[in-house]
Parts: sequence; C-alpha cells; structure tokens
Amino acid sequence: MDNDRFAKTPEPPYYAVIFSSLRTGIDGGYGLTARRMLELAAQQPGYLGAESARNADGFGITVSYWDSEAAISNWKSQAEHQAVQTLGRQVWYEHYELRIAKVERCYGKPADEA
Amino acid sequence: MDNDRFAKTPEPPYYAVIFSSLRTGIDGGYGLTARRMLELAAQQPGYLGAESARNADGFGITVSYWDSEAAISNWKSQAEHQAVQTLGRQVWYEHYELRIAKVERCYGKPADEA
Repeated sequence: MDNDRFAKTPEPPYYAVIFSSLRTGIDGGYGLTARRMLELAAQQPGYLGAESARNADGFGITVSYWDSEAAISNWKSQAEHQAVQTLGRQVWYEHYELRIAKVERCYGKPADEA
Repeated sequence: MDNDRFAKTPEPPYYAVIFSSLRTGIDGGYGLTARRMLELAAQQPGYLGAESARNADGFGITVSYWDSEAAISNWKSQAEHQAVQTLGRQVWYEHYELRIAKVERCYGKPADEA
C-alpha cells in the first residue's frame, strides 16, 4: 500500500508542486476528474510521482514531483489539464495556493534506518 | 476558517519542509503532541506558517514554511522537538519522507482573481 501513497523520487535536486486547496461543497465529477488528472500527470515527461491527502473538512494538499521546471510548465499547459484547471477555479475550489519549489534534500523512514 | 488552514507566506523565495507520513495505529498522545509541535514551531525564529491534511487511512502531508535553511536547522535541533522526532520514528510513523525545498513561485485563488 505504501507504493500508492509515497512518491518514489530520485536523489535531489528535483522540483515539487505543492497544491493546497479547500474544496467547495460542489461535487460535479470531482473525484473521477481528480483521479484522471493523476493518471494523466503520470504520463507526462519528467513526472516523478505525487502524494495527496485531504481532511474530512475539505482541506487538502497534493504534492507532485517533477524533474525540471520545464516539465511543470508543460504539464500546466497540457490541453485537457488546462480545461480542468478552469473547472477547479470556477467550481471545485473555494481557495487554493500553488507553490513551485526546488527540492534540495530528502530523508525518511524506513530508508534512514537501513 | 481559511486563516487556520492556509499559510500566509510572503513573496518567494522562502523554504518549505514537506513531511509526508503514514501513521501507525498507535495513538499514545499523538494528537496532543502534534498540536503542541505546531504551536512550538510557530514560536521559532523564521517560521512563516504551516498547512496540514490527513486522510482517514492515516496518510498525511504537513508542509511548514520558513524564511531560511538556518531556521529549518534550528527547528530540527530544538530540544523538545528532537525528543518528539524520536517518538515519531519509534512509535507514531510507519513510514515518512521529509523533503526540504526552496519555494520559487506561488500563486492561487482568490489572490489571482483580485
């Protein structure tokens, strides 16, 4: 199950897109579309992985990892993704913040105990 | 309520600590300690804010924001926090990944619509 939750990223440096969002109460196909977007992201050049969690109150964080800023720009401008971004702004998200960051160091458990 | 969920960060650049974790089933004061750590973090020099979400299945992401790498190092070595990190590794987290990243760009809603 860990395979589905934790991104298997390479040694830094690489890039992270940190997407924090508060959902509206409107469903309108959100769950299906969110899954489709994760599948589509995984097919893009430079995609390294993604992690996602959401509270029962509607606040969530999704972090996707990419090998370059160019890969992030390409994904942002992908046609199907662009249409969904518009839906996100207009329908699904009350509020969101998107941050693009360069990952410089990474450590964890169990790797650090090996 | 947004005040409690979204970090009010300044213009980039600044730093993010992305902490992804899968909880064990062991409580042992986890909730109280997690809240105490967020309060304590907020008192540290260079702290800019934090955001956190956890699925019902125990997978969660907490992102804290800092004005420098030195501020992150200081927080990592803070005495009470160090004791709690040990508990985290030994008791509360089945698996975790901690990534330190430099935030280079940020945008969002509603700010982008203003």
